[in-house]
Amino acid sequence: MDECDGKCDTCAESGSGTDPKKEMEMQAKKATEKMDKIKYKIMVASGKGGVGKSTVAVNLARALCNKGYKVGVLDADITGPNIPKLLGVEDDKLLMGPEGITPIDTRGVKLISMAFVLSNPDSAVIWRGPMKMVAIRQFMADVTWGDLDFLIIDLPPGTSDEPLSVIQLIPDLSGAIIVTTPQEVALLDSRKAVNMVKTMNVPVLGIIENMSGFRCPHCGEVLDIFKTGGGEKASKDLEIPFLGAIPLDLDVTPLGDKGMTFIDQKGDTAAKKSFEEIVDRLIEKLIG
Amino acid sequence: MDECDGKCDTCAESGSGTDPKKEMEMQAKKATEKMDKIKYKIMVASGKGGVGKSTVAVNLARALCNKGYKVGVLDADITGPNIPKLLGVEDDKLLMGPEGITPIDTRGVKLISMAFVLSNPDSAVIWRGPMKMVAIRQFMADVTWGDLDFLIIDLPPGTSDEPLSVIQLIPDLSGAIIVTTPQEVALLDSRKAVNMVKTMNVPVLGIIENMSGFRCPHCGEVLDIFKTGGGEKASKDLEIPFLGAIPLDLDVTPLGDKGMTFIDQKGDTAAKKSFEEIVDRLIEKLIG
Repeated sequence: MDECDGKCDTCAESGSGTDPKKEMEMQAKKATEKMDKIKYKIMVASGKGGVGKSTVAVNLARALCNKGYKVGVLDADITGPNIPKLLGVEDDKLLMGPEGITPIDTRGVKLISMAFVLSNPDSAVIWRGPMKMVAIRQFMADVTWGDLDFLIIDLPPGTSDEPLSVIQLIPDLSGAIIVTTPQEVALLDSRKAVNMVKTMNVPVLGIIENMSGFRCPHCGEVLDIFKTGGGEKASKDLEIPFLGAIPLDLDVTPLGDKGMTFIDQKGDTAAKKSFEEIVDRLIEKLIG
Repeated sequence: MDECDGKCDTCAESGSGTDPKKEMEMQAKKATEKMDKIKYKIMVASGKGGVGKSTVAVNLARALCNKGYKVGVLDADITGPNIPKLLGVEDDKLLMGPEGITPIDTRGVKLISMAFVLSNPDSAVIWRGPMKMVAIRQFMADVTWGDLDFLIIDLPPGTSDEPLSVIQLIPDLSGAIIVTTPQEVALLDSRKAVNMVKTMNVPVLGIIENMSGFRCPHCGEVLDIFKTGGGEKASKDLEIPFLGAIPLDLDVTPLGDKGMTFIDQKGDTAAKKSFEEIVDRLIEKLIG
């Protein structure tokens, strides 16, 4: 496609009085400056949807925050932003000041999401790719993130516009975490996601298998609803680290619906225990 | 964005010797002609991924085929095409003849998918939106679909490029089926999908709730893994028809991984029985 030089009729008609190409470059520069102040920028990706990617992202953010790190979450799922719902702040609205947009503070984790911009939670953002890139860039450039230790970027599933935009806007990404469920159809998509990340020269921090084996709380029998072990097998095949498996837990869905995270639950559930080990492995890998 | 007039340097340099704008118009015209020969064109959409949308699409196609209808499936998930895997034909390759591309025949159902174009199933199609539209248009214009009764179009999750492209290319879509799982986070996204479809003036044929209540095969206890009833509630709230609920079935995942459909299973499983009622409701709605 042709490059916009900001001089054709369409741009002139927009009447903004600014040079769109220059404005885009300025925004990209601002985004880089903001991102430079954040030590570790981690993308949470998956090939297939519905694997619990957003659940992993919010629990990772909360776990890091609980350990005393300064943490932000950028919800890069422009058309299906669920992070605010999972963190129980879906009714919040953004504040705009002279310094930029203030992210929502959710018990210590800074959060920005398209959900805070929509007037009605049921509104559909029917945007093609280039518009989504504009939104993601703005979420980096115009938000007062400050000095963070970690920024967790939650992507929509697939290998299209959003991951491309994030990778282009943050050249020094710490890496990507790939979330998968254990069935083969999900693994097929996960392999695509891993190959996208590798093709774009982003380090793969590791793969997390979610909804691994389920124990019936009534009779104790372990049932393979989505099978088990596929994530570990895929990590071997693709020669990438395996960060761990999170067991399917009956309490996780209602918690998410209530805006609560399983990592903050009292007591030691199997999901929480597995996830804490995953977070420790990740910190060890990044910080040592 | 500016419209391409096919006369700038980028187009001249491509050296194709054709006028890209004219070629695009011709392709769109061809797509319309091909689609005009198909009686019912149904989009299967969801707000959130991983809700079993592709499983619903293939089982719907097989169910209609088993009833004697001529059926095709267009896998419009360009970056994560899973339908060939679910129908057990993932190793097939497309044949190109003077009439166009011959769809893969899978036990009577004609199928076209990006998966048949990739040399390696793990390859990632890292395309931005406009390129995906080109692929979807080609899947309509250059494929020898012939006179079909039904074309089932499986979309990727969300409200972005692919549904927009399909809706623009097929102005006389029979309607959209929205697939959801019962938890609130999924329903939040489903409402967005319904609103997108309504905004684009496409009829909503109804909502299907997938992975509804799960019965432990060991002890018989019904467990709410993803809760139940949310789909029916959403259909009431949004004033759209409820087509039915498909119970979570331990046999469905391994069947999909083996390229088999639950609708073709011997015996009466709960999932099969519910799905047959859904298909009958859909036929009643479309054909009467």
